[in-house]
Amino acid sequence: MIKGLSKAGIGDVGEIKQYIHLASKYNFKAIDIDGHSLTEFIKTEGLINAKKFLEDHKVAIGSIGLDVEWRKSEEDFKKGLTQLLSDAKAASSLGCRSCITYIFPSTDMNAAQFMSVATRRLRLCSQILGGFGMRFGLEFVGPHHLRTSLANPFIWNLEQTLDFVDAIGEPNVGLLLDSYHCYTTEFRNEEVSKLDSNQIIHVHINDARPLPVKELLDNDRLYPGEGVIDLPSFLQALKQAGYRGPVTQEVLTPNALKEPAEVLIKKSSIAYSNLFKKAGLD
Amino acid sequence: MIKGLSKAGIGDVGEIKQYIHLASKYNFKAIDIDGHSLTEFIKTEGLINAKKFLEDHKVAIGSIGLDVEWRKSEEDFKKGLTQLLSDAKAASSLGCRSCITYIFPSTDMNAAQFMSVATRRLRLCSQILGGFGMRFGLEFVGPHHLRTSLANPFIWNLEQTLDFVDAIGEPNVGLLLDSYHCYTTEFRNEEVSKLDSNQIIHVHINDARPLPVKELLDNDRLYPGEGVIDLPSFLQALKQAGYRGPVTQEVLTPNALKEPAEVLIKKSSIAYSNLFKKAGLD
Amino acid sequence: MIKGLSKAGIGDVGEIKQYIHLASKYNFKAIDIDGHSLTEFIKTEGLINAKKFLEDHKVAIGSIGLDVEWRKSEEDFKKGLTQLLSDAKAASSLGCRSCITYIFPSTDMNAAQFMSVATRRLRLCSQILGGFGMRFGLEFVGPHHLRTSLANPFIWNLEQTLDFVDAIGEPNVGLLLDSYHCYTTEFRNEEVSKLDSNQIIHVHINDARPLPVKELLDNDRLYPGEGVIDLPSFLQALKQAGYRGPVTQEVLTPNALKEPAEVLIKKSSIAYSNLFKKAGLD
Amino acid sequence: MIKGLSKAGIGDVGEIKQYIHLASKYNFKAIDIDGHSLTEFIKTEGLINAKKFLEDHKVAIGSIGLDVEWRKSEEDFKKGLTQLLSDAKAASSLGCRSCITYIFPSTDMNAAQFMSVATRRLRLCSQILGGFGMRFGLEFVGPHHLRTSLANPFIWNLEQTLDFVDAIGEPNVGLLLDSYHCYTTEFRNEEVSKLDSNQIIHVHINDARPLPVKELLDNDRLYPGEGVIDLPSFLQALKQAGYRGPVTQEVLTPNALKEPAEVLIKKSSIAYSNLFKKAGLD
Repeated sequence: MIKGLSKAGIGDVGEIKQYIHLASKYNFKAIDIDGHSLTEFIKTEGLINAKKFLEDHKVAIGSIGLDVEWRKSEEDFKKGLTQLLSDAKAASSLGCRSCITYIFPSTDMNAAQFMSVATRRLRLCSQILGGFGMRFGLEFVGPHHLRTSLANPFIWNLEQTLDFVDAIGEPNVGLLLDSYHCYTTEFRNEEVSKLDSNQIIHVHINDARPLPVKELLDNDRLYPGEGVIDLPSFLQALKQAGYRGPVTQEVLTPNALKEPAEVLIKKSSIAYSNLFKKAGLD
Repeated sequence: MIKGLSKAGIGDVGEIKQYIHLASKYNFKAIDIDGHSLTEFIKTEGLINAKKFLEDHKVAIGSIGLDVEWRKSEEDFKKGLTQLLSDAKAASSLGCRSCITYIFPSTDMNAAQFMSVATRRLRLCSQILGGFGMRFGLEFVGPHHLRTSLANPFIWNLEQTLDFVDAIGEPNVGLLLDSYHCYTTEFRNEEVSKLDSNQIIHVHINDARPLPVKELLDNDRLYPGEGVIDLPSFLQALKQAGYRGPVTQEVLTPNALKEPAEVLIKKSSIAYSNLFKKAGLD
Repeated sequence: MIKGLSKAGIGDVGEIKQYIHLASKYNFKAIDIDGHSLTEFIKTEGLINAKKFLEDHKVAIGSIGLDVEWRKSEEDFKKGLTQLLSDAKAASSLGCRSCITYIFPSTDMNAAQFMSVATRRLRLCSQILGGFGMRFGLEFVGPHHLRTSLANPFIWNLEQTLDFVDAIGEPNVGLLLDSYHCYTTEFRNEEVSKLDSNQIIHVHINDARPLPVKELLDNDRLYPGEGVIDLPSFLQALKQAGYRGPVTQEVLTPNALKEPAEVLIKKSSIAYSNLFKKAGLD
Repeated sequence: MIKGLSKAGIGDVGEIKQYIHLASKYNFKAIDIDGHSLTEFIKTEGLINAKKFLEDHKVAIGSIGLDVEWRKSEEDFKKGLTQLLSDAKAASSLGCRSCITYIFPSTDMNAAQFMSVATRRLRLCSQILGGFGMRFGLEFVGPHHLRTSLANPFIWNLEQTLDFVDAIGEPNVGLLLDSYHCYTTEFRNEEVSKLDSNQIIHVHINDARPLPVKELLDNDRLYPGEGVIDLPSFLQALKQAGYRGPVTQEVLTPNALKEPAEVLIKKSSIAYSNLFKKAGLD
């Protein structure tokens, strides 16, 4: 498994070269970033230099976020496809193999109809990503308060998301597993270990406060090791499932981070080091 | 368009040859029936004789019902696939080109998850039917009382069903339009006329009591012309959409029919004759 | 059916407004054009004015050509997808419902492998077009000399193209039937009449010299009515199949046309008028 | 990776319980067998006992062969679907997760058209298998003499088969890699090691005579370790790709085997033991 960094938890890290540089300095092997920044990176540096910069720093692009609005109007959705194509082109040319999106656990539409619409839209996104050799990871979102924040319940757990993946039915779609969402839906690592490795597209880790599960808020997470989630077992389960991809830190916080990015990256690096040691990963 | 008969509205018509005979006698050109009866028909008569019997009577098999339980357990679903294969084989060998199922408008499952599961299951049914050159029609069910008879609302109108068809995403899937369900979801014939002919797989007609739409019960329908639905306009809209397939009578009633089948077929024949005349169809 | 015009047979008709104007003046109801010109048209006039201009002239956009190189390298293919997205966006916003491409009947690749690659690539094109509500028509190319002009035979007739359509397997893919290719593959109008209307995405007409079929050259066609193809029967067969879309003139010629576009459009208009009369269409 | 046995190389091993017993006795953890035998096994023993027998012997069903004729007429193809459904039901109920078929490297049909037809047919097989949670492995066949034994070249190597897999486009389709076919198409283990584990559905091993590659015959193979193929490197490459499934012996021979099955299984067991040791697998 590959130690990965996202901006959620490290704040404003500056331009992409600085981001790559710091990730590399603190022993991360992958960064998550938006596709637009990659397009800009290639535009500024040239594709060959951009690739070389990544290689020289031994940092890969772990994943990009889906920048397509698939939850609202058809008009909005179609507009995003041009962005998707451009993101996929940039990301794949830099060796990135996956794109991710999250599923909000409630909806203001009729839930069944929205599932039909979402299936069609995310299938088209999968197909376009597949055209660039990329995979697509769907992240279920567990915290209880979000299940009722819009009018109708949608989906929020592993089983439902696997059904969604099957409904989409494309070879390159699978799960983004986030330790916080796994924890807030109370499923056991045993279930993770039984997945096929190709069902897991990407992994997020972060930790939870010592509160009753139903009270945990989505944007109030802790750094790995600071909370109550048994992350070593989570990683061991992923290993048992054959997963070899990035394990990316994503720490959502209620307020802007106060410490500078480098301090937070260093802190994250130590947390990762401890965690991987406990999990028996090198 | 082809005048079609189903058993709903004529009761116990006896064995299939009698059914075909009476349909033919009273000027119907297609009958709907279950696939199992077709398998039996071929077994008893031999395929060549069975086809000849249909041809001699100028009666086609309009459609068969999907005999697969796709609303319950995975186990139940898989069991039905053998039946589907056998039904598709029999029906297609007799020239039948379509299979149909209805969508119950509420569900006891999480509605979004059930939509995912239903999408996957009905896609597989479509694919198997497609292997036999058959199409697959989904019938939305409009009456208000059924939208709340199970725990969660599912889908019940044209737009939602088109979204479902798109989610399934197979070339041979489309709509079964039933005049009663169109009426109880209050959509206008103008919308029917704008459909592509290939979106319409099959059509049911029947009539509604002069009650407020919200009070109409699913199993208390009238024969075409006896109620308040503007069926001539409905047929004209179908014609404008380019639909050329069977228009099959389906009259669901709360109690068993009292009159003999032949009397009811004759009555239906007169109703069809009047209706087609009013609609300007020959 | 809708009388349609393409530039093949009328030459340099000037900018798009002139093209629309002349089509309208001579009673054509649809024009075929490249997507890029539509994007430019919208850019110059604004979408609302562009639509109004078409409506005022009672001219629709019949079809756009696929501007994606799907026969060469993967790199070339991917580059074209951005163009496709942009073309589909422009065309669909102007009400155009279809995009077309032709299949060259021989290939320098291993034919089976090229079929696999082509299936994957054209499927992705279909999916993107489907995202914009557009259909995709595949044109088989019949002339004998092209079947051997590259190293290995590929496909060139109706049956093979229907198999290709099935291999792609998307709901919005079908045939572009061109009278010249039908003629050079010697298939009978009876076969056309048995197609489902939704299998036919677009139609080209033109005529053939009185030569043995094997000697007919692809780029040496005649205007409708000037040659030996029984075009009235072809149109009747299309009508019988339920086809209602554009019937577009496409006259490929070995040399540049000498007469001005308006003269050739007028000539085409008279040819269409005679042809539609003979075929018993409006 | 799991040591697997097929009947090719051990001859008549008697009824299935004997086959399982001997596989177990000589340290094999999986057997390949036809689906029909599994249906019979369940019929005779009951599902619970059949499963228990396998568990008690610590032997899994590695894979079943596709018993559908997809290379000939449509009629033949459809007939096979009932068998496929029945095989998939039996195999999946016993925990078997894959079905396999081989691709003959030449064809008497137009190669491109046959690829279209094969894509459609194998897609339906994949979909039915997917309905039972099973995957589908396509085996390319490398020996040179078979590439010209029918009229037109089809496909025979890794790259072409990956293109075929992509043309089918279902999530559960991938490769069956056979060491003999890899060797006769002269591709390097490096290419195997770069595959994703989910692209590899099943593996066959066997060895080749010390002849020029072009002279190697399909049905004249040796037991692992008896020939010139570097099988330890092949297994290491599979491991590097993350493959964890069965590695099944398949030794095709020109004449019926003379030694009793148990002798040949013992011999195979020793060969596997040596091979796995050399490859650094336990």
